[in-house]
Amino acid sequence: MDLAKLACAVMPTLRRPGLLLVSASRNRRPNVMAIGWGLIGNVWGIPMFVAAVRPSRYTHDLIEATKDFTVNVPAKGMDDVVSTCGSISGRQVDKFKETGLIPMPSRKVKSPIIKQCIAHLECSVLYQFQIEKRRLPKQIKLRVYPHGNYHDIYFGRILKAYADKDYESKLP
Amino acid sequence: MDLAKLACAVMPTLRRPGLLLVSASRNRRPNVMAIGWGLIGNVWGIPMFVAAVRPSRYTHDLIEATKDFTVNVPAKGMDDVVSTCGSISGRQVDKFKETGLIPMPSRKVKSPIIKQCIAHLECSVLYQFQIEKRRLPKQIKLRVYPHGNYHDIYFGRILKAYADKDYESKLP
Repeated sequence: MDLAKLACAVMPTLRRPGLLLVSASRNRRPNVMAIGWGLIGNVWGIPMFVAAVRPSRYTHDLIEATKDFTVNVPAKGMDDVVSTCGSISGRQVDKFKETGLIPMPSRKVKSPIIKQCIAHLECSVLYQFQIEKRRLPKQIKLRVYPHGNYHDIYFGRILKAYADKDYESKLP
Repeated sequence: MDLAKLACAVMPTLRRPGLLLVSASRNRRPNVMAIGWGLIGNVWGIPMFVAAVRPSRYTHDLIEATKDFTVNVPAKGMDDVVSTCGSISGRQVDKFKETGLIPMPSRKVKSPIIKQCIAHLECSVLYQFQIEKRRLPKQIKLRVYPHGNYHDIYFGRILKAYADKDYESKLP
């Protein structure tokens, strides 16, 4: 699946209801979080999805352990599931069990994909950095970081991307 | 123009022939460079285009002076112009004169847009950082940075985005 088509599949869903980012612990226990922010394109001539994760998140521990993640586009009708994934922590609860989402082995990375989703990106972390307080405009510091916990930004090389044949008709 | 449509317009052109990034000096002399790398999406809930510019580039001086830039999608048939913009430096040559491209005032930023292009993003730099050698995989260091000159990465808030009504039929 080429980058242009991918961008068209991912972008409409990013803002609402959100995409599902899946990570896994070293012993392959998966976790899923809802993301409403992200960037897609290419850097260094390499197709890339860029995700932002706060250090306090369970997903952060998992990405740090395996250095990979998957991005999954939910189907129409999955809004409640996405919302649940965005409101509880995988530290306390197995969100796959809680929501009925089914993890499936991916092809190139340790983090699984989600069976019910209609498009999937498998990403391996190529570069990362943390947002620096001193470089931020004041209004973003106040709105997004009143308690610090500055996002780590992960540049994920898209190793594999694929979608259901009829994904366009299933987009939310 | 919403982010999803924008991503669909920008992404196919990014890799080939490339997009045209326009910047301007404080006294409004414009310069144009061809870019084949970039990211689009949203961060902090804000629509964003992310560009990479090496410190040695003339464009770098200009973005540092005004903290804004525009991204312009070339029309079908402009491949040679894009290629010329990618092979000479604006320090020596006025690339607008050289190529016949016409700068036009943009609506929200100091950098102009290009009349002949079919879609335009006006961006204001919200965050920037420089790629750090120690965080890069070895193969990228060797391939992209044999002489250093590590890219500055500019997060450009998309303040305004618009396209010709029939831009889809004019895409390269």
